[in-house]
Amino acid sequence: MTVSDDPSFNALLERFAAIVGDRHALRDSADMAPFVSERRGLWPGVAAMVLRPGSVDEVSRILKLASETGTVIVPQGGNTGLVGGGMPDRSGRQIVLSLSRLDRVREIDPLSNTITVEAGLTLQALHEAADGADRYFPLSLASQGSCQIGGNLSTNAGGTAVLAYGNARELCLGVEVVLPTGEVLDDLRKLKKDNTGYDLKNLFIGAEGTLGVITAMVLKLLPKPRGREVAFVGLDSPSAALDLLNRALDRAGTGLTGFELIGRRPVEFMLKHVPDAISPLAGDWPWYVLMEISSGRSAEDARESIEEILGEALEAGLIGDAAIAENLTHADAFWKLREGVSEAQRYEGFSIKHDISVPVASIPVFIERAGEAVASVCKDARVVCFGHMGDGNLHYNISQPAGGDPEEFKALYRPMNKSVHDVVRALNGSISAEHGIGQLKRDELAATAPPIALDLMRRIKAAFDPAGIMNPGKVI
Amino acid sequence: MTVSDDPSFNALLERFAAIVGDRHALRDSADMAPFVSERRGLWPGVAAMVLRPGSVDEVSRILKLASETGTVIVPQGGNTGLVGGGMPDRSGRQIVLSLSRLDRVREIDPLSNTITVEAGLTLQALHEAADGADRYFPLSLASQGSCQIGGNLSTNAGGTAVLAYGNARELCLGVEVVLPTGEVLDDLRKLKKDNTGYDLKNLFIGAEGTLGVITAMVLKLLPKPRGREVAFVGLDSPSAALDLLNRALDRAGTGLTGFELIGRRPVEFMLKHVPDAISPLAGDWPWYVLMEISSGRSAEDARESIEEILGEALEAGLIGDAAIAENLTHADAFWKLREGVSEAQRYEGFSIKHDISVPVASIPVFIERAGEAVASVCKDARVVCFGHMGDGNLHYNISQPAGGDPEEFKALYRPMNKSVHDVVRALNGSISAEHGIGQLKRDELAATAPPIALDLMRRIKAAFDPAGIMNPGKVI
Repeated sequence: MTVSDDPSFNALLERFAAIVGDRHALRDSADMAPFVSERRGLWPGVAAMVLRPGSVDEVSRILKLASETGTVIVPQGGNTGLVGGGMPDRSGRQIVLSLSRLDRVREIDPLSNTITVEAGLTLQALHEAADGADRYFPLSLASQGSCQIGGNLSTNAGGTAVLAYGNARELCLGVEVVLPTGEVLDDLRKLKKDNTGYDLKNLFIGAEGTLGVITAMVLKLLPKPRGREVAFVGLDSPSAALDLLNRALDRAGTGLTGFELIGRRPVEFMLKHVPDAISPLAGDWPWYVLMEISSGRSAEDARESIEEILGEALEAGLIGDAAIAENLTHADAFWKLREGVSEAQRYEGFSIKHDISVPVASIPVFIERAGEAVASVCKDARVVCFGHMGDGNLHYNISQPAGGDPEEFKALYRPMNKSVHDVVRALNGSISAEHGIGQLKRDELAATAPPIALDLMRRIKAAFDPAGIMNPGKVI
Repeated sequence: MTVSDDPSFNALLERFAAIVGDRHALRDSADMAPFVSERRGLWPGVAAMVLRPGSVDEVSRILKLASETGTVIVPQGGNTGLVGGGMPDRSGRQIVLSLSRLDRVREIDPLSNTITVEAGLTLQALHEAADGADRYFPLSLASQGSCQIGGNLSTNAGGTAVLAYGNARELCLGVEVVLPTGEVLDDLRKLKKDNTGYDLKNLFIGAEGTLGVITAMVLKLLPKPRGREVAFVGLDSPSAALDLLNRALDRAGTGLTGFELIGRRPVEFMLKHVPDAISPLAGDWPWYVLMEISSGRSAEDARESIEEILGEALEAGLIGDAAIAENLTHADAFWKLREGVSEAQRYEGFSIKHDISVPVASIPVFIERAGEAVASVCKDARVVCFGHMGDGNLHYNISQPAGGDPEEFKALYRPMNKSVHDVVRALNGSISAEHGIGQLKRDELAATAPPIALDLMRRIKAAFDPAGIMNPGKVI
C-alpha cells in the first residue's frame, strides 16, 4: 500500500496541513523536490509533506501533533548541509519541517551587542542586519546566501572566522527551542554569564535537529573592525606554517582573524579552472597561507601589525614570499583563491572528501601520514589539502587520478575514508570538525566513538525525545 | 542508631578506605573538619568519611562501589565555593571525595596552545605552569591560591577576564570524567572544532559534580600579552560607564581585558578599612571604572590604545577624570581597590549578597530599580555595587544600616533577595551569574526557573545518575 492509499495517514496529513494552511503545506512532488534532495544528489528522500510554518506557535502545534501520532519530523534550514542531516528517508512517511518562513530579526541591541533572530533568516540577511546597526557578525560560510542561521546553530557551523571568534556555539547566547512535545523552551537571554543549572543551550546547538527545533536565538555582535589586511604567503612546509601561525597569534592575538593553509595543488586547480584567478606571488611554492589581520583601532594598526609579522617571518627564513593585498579587490581575490577550491576541484573528476581536525601542532604530521595513507590506497590519487589551520581543521580532499575512471575511484570511497580517518584517530582528532554527522558519518561514529560517549548521547536522546520523532537516523 | 553503631555501614566504609589506603581515608572528625565546613560557616555538614584518591582509577573504583551500594558522593575541590555545592549534608552518611591529590600537569603543548591538567591542581599552580611555557591562562579569581581547576570547571567559574577570554567553559577544550558507574569518559581532546554528536563536555562543566566527577581537562593557553595598561576612571553614572564600555570595545575589541564598575561606597569602604588603599583620583566621583587594555604587539600599543580611548571619552564629556597606572605597583593598587571590596565590606557588618547578570545595556536600569527595591525593604541599607560590567555581571551586595543590629538585618535576607531578584527577572537576567546554584539557590531556582527547563535538567540528571548518588541536594 502506498502512502496515498492509506486513508488514515492522509487524514493525519490533513490535520498537519490545517495547522499551517494549505498554501504552506506542500504535497505535490514537484513542490517538494527542493526539500527532499540536496546539491550533490546524495540521500534522495521521499517526504509525506513539507510544512512551512509561519510562527513558533505553528511549530509547536506541529510537534505536539507529531508526538501524539508518532509522526517523524525532519527539520530543515537552507538545505546546504553536507552530511544529509536535513533529508527525509525514502519511506514517504516523514514530514519535512522547513523553518524558512520564520525569518524575522526580532531585536537588535547595539549597546548589549546582541541580535535576536529567527531560525529561517539567511546568514547573509543576518550580516546585513548587523551591518545596518554598525555591528559585525563574524560567522562566515561559502553558502551564506542560502544557509539559514537555525541550520548554522543546529550544525554548530564553523568557517574561516572561528580562529578569532569561535564557532556558532560560541557566538550564541540564548535559544528558543520547540521540544518534541510542542512545549517551547524560552531561553532567549542576552547573558554572557549565567550559571543556573545544566547547559541546555549547548545540547541543542550541534544536535542537528534530533532533540528539538531551534526557532530563534540571541547572537553576539561585535564592533566592526576599522582595519583589515590580507596577505598571501608562500612557504616550504606545514611546519613553517605552524611556526608562522604561532608568531602571528603571539603578535596579534584575536586580531588574527584568518589563517588558512592551502597546498600547491588546490592553487593549481584554481589557476587552471577559474578564469579570473591569479596567483598573488611570482613564483611557485609548495604551500601557501592566507593570513588576515584585523584591528579595531585603525587601518594603519592592522597594516603595521601584518607587516611586522611578515617582516619578522621573512627575516627568520620562515616564509619565502608574501604579498599584502593593496585594496579590497586584491583582498577579495586572495580569499577567492581559498574559497573557490571546492568548486575548482569538480573539474578534476570525482573526489573523496574529509572534514577533519587534529591538535594544531599535529597538522604537519597529519599531512605527512595522511599522504602516505592515501598513496597506499591509490598511488596516483591527488591530495587537495586546504583549510582552517588555525583551528587544526583541514578539508583533506582526494581527487581521482588525472584522466582515470571516476567510477573506479569512487569504489575506493570506504577504504580511503578509513585510512585517512585512522590517521585522524591516531592523532586524537575528529572525523567531523565542522560539517556534523547527519547520515554521512552516523555509522562511522557508532563504530568508532567511545562506547561510553555513545551511551550518554543515546540516554540524552531518549530523555529528550522518548517517542523518537525528531529527525531519526541522524547523528546517533 | 548513630553511624558508628551501624556495623554494615562501617564495613562498607572499610571497603571505600581500602581503595585509597587508610592514610587517605579520613574518618577522624578533626581530620575531616576542613572538608565539611566552608569559610563562612554556612551549610556545616557531617561526613561519613573523606576520601582522597591519588589516581583516576581510584576515583573510578570509588564511584563504582558507591553506585553498587547507593552511597552518596560529594565531590570537592579547593572548598572555596560560595553556594555550598561541595558540602555534605548532616546525615553522616555521605562521603566527601576530595580531588586535591589529583594535581598533576599532564602535558603542556605550546604549539597547540593547550595544557592538560588534573582536577586538583590549584588555579595558581596552573598559572605558574602556563607561565613556565611562556603562555598565559586567563581565568583569574580572588581565591586562586586555593581553588582548584576541577572546581572551577564544575562551577563554570567566571572572574574578571571573562570579557575578553570567556568563562571556564570557553577555556576548556576537553574533559575526562568519571561517571557515577565508575566508567571513565575520556574526551581529553585538544580540538577547537569537533562536531561529532552531542556536546557532553558542556554538560559536565557547570554541573557542580551532580552528573559525574571531572578528573582532568584540556585547557586553552594564550600568548602572553606584551603590553597591559590599567586605568582608574571617575564618572557620573552607570550610563556613562556603558557608553565608555562600548567605545573601548569598539577600539580595542578583545584587547579590552577588564572593565569593572565600582560604586563610590565600595571605594569608600576600601579607603576606610584597608590601610594601604589609596584612591588614584584627586576628587570623588559617584562611580568608578577600572579598565584594562592588553596588547600582543607591544607595551606602546596598549598605552596608545588606552590613551586614545580615555582621551576621546574625556573630550566627549563622558568621564570626569582618569589615571593610568604608571607601573606595575600602581596597576596592582588599582586592581586591589576592586578586588578588596568583599573584604572591606566585612567591617561594615552583615551583608546580603547577590551575584546577578543582566543584558549589558540594562545595567543602568538595573542599578536604578534595584536601588529602589532595596530601599523599599530597608531604607537605610547600604548598597555596595561593583562587578564585571563588561559581562553584565554585578556583585550587588547590601550592607546593613550603619551602626544597626546585624541580626535585625539578617532577618531581611529573604525579602531582600526576593526584591533584588525580581528586578533581575524582570530584566531577563540571571540570579547566579558565576557562583552557581549549590544549596544556596536551589530552592529559588526550582521556584522560579521555567518548568520546562527544570524538567529537562531533571531528565538529564536521571539519565546520567539514575541511582542519585552524585551530590544530591545541589543544583536541582
